[in-house]
Amino acid sequence: MWCVARPEGLAPSRIEVAEATDVFGGQMETYPITIGKFTRHVPLIEPLPGTRIPLVELLGDVEFVNAAADALLAHVPAETEILLTSETSPIVLAHALAERLGKPYIVVRKKRRPYMEDPIIQEVESLTLGVGEVLWLDRRMAEKLMGQNTVLVSDVVSSGGTMLALERVAERAGAKVVARLAAFRQGSGPTKVPVTTLGDLPILQTT
Amino acid sequence: MWCVARPEGLAPSRIEVAEATDVFGGQMETYPITIGKFTRHVPLIEPLPGTRIPLVELLGDVEFVNAAADALLAHVPAETEILLTSETSPIVLAHALAERLGKPYIVVRKKRRPYMEDPIIQEVESLTLGVGEVLWLDRRMAEKLMGQNTVLVSDVVSSGGTMLALERVAERAGAKVVARLAAFRQGSGPTKVPVTTLGDLPILQTT
Repeated sequence: MWCVARPEGLAPSRIEVAEATDVFGGQMETYPITIGKFTRHVPLIEPLPGTRIPLVELLGDVEFVNAAADALLAHVPAETEILLTSETSPIVLAHALAERLGKPYIVVRKKRRPYMEDPIIQEVESLTLGVGEVLWLDRRMAEKLMGQNTVLVSDVVSSGGTMLALERVAERAGAKVVARLAAFRQGSGPTKVPVTTLGDLPILQTT
Repeated sequence: MWCVARPEGLAPSRIEVAEATDVFGGQMETYPITIGKFTRHVPLIEPLPGTRIPLVELLGDVEFVNAAADALLAHVPAETEILLTSETSPIVLAHALAERLGKPYIVVRKKRRPYMEDPIIQEVESLTLGVGEVLWLDRRMAEKLMGQNTVLVSDVVSSGGTMLALERVAERAGAKVVARLAAFRQGSGPTKVPVTTLGDLPILQTT
């Protein structure tokens, strides 16, 4: 059987995560995730034997991204001047949120681009990915963050390693981080930095 | 001095590309690019000694992306069912265009993601990048393209290598490509496949 592992003491999710009921060949193949009035039956992936997690994909889904942006809007401090996010899937969420705010956003890249001059280079410590990724921010982009009230935006926060690295990039660029937002929190245990999320994604385990 | 190299016989640009006038320390540092009522003074980068090109960055600029999406809308065939684009910068353009159309879009990745199953793998021959990139499309995403009237979306087309690779991914997924769209055409010479663009970006050369 499958069970849902939930961290103790976690606040009730504002996103309804229903029981997994999509069964194919005796195994769950999808998991229902809801934001606002939109539900998506997302694939389950198995990062470790016996452990499955829902795969949320914001890329390609305008409705879902807009619903998440609408819901995150309430958590954006009034003094916010700019958003900062990283490749790839959170980009569309930052874009939609920036559109609602009428503010710019900046995308930290995960690969060096040929045009970059004197970039800020920041390693990500990520348990999820297993290997250290590297964030790259062109100096011309970094200059736009100087002294700005900045909101960090991600899609799914697991260990918080990417969010922490994003925060370090922001600080090194002279920005003031005023909030850290993500659509979902995945897994239990503390994150490396506090993050405001809309809801939780379960970790499903065989018993 | 700098001059603007334009391919012969090219139709007049629908985007006003003014003379480069931003001079700093005797060298042009930015170049003005206009879409609709929005002008951006973008950095000039030097991919080869003596050759400079404007660096268009759609990421982070909601207004400019929306203006491009509005203008590209007229070139989307009525029978279109889905959009296909690739990482990273064209994603926001495809997203905005998909929002206007009320259609889904799919993003071909440039790196293998851990969740991918039986992906379509397609090499890109690109003169601009100098090295062959590789496109990756998860099979679950590819299945959504089967039999669908598909529009390919990019931001800047140079040799057309990425657009051609995107077309091959679409065909291998069983899609029917009904249009190829991009915001800008950069450089002279034929593209590997015909692409509808909003305007031209110059190649600036020392003489």
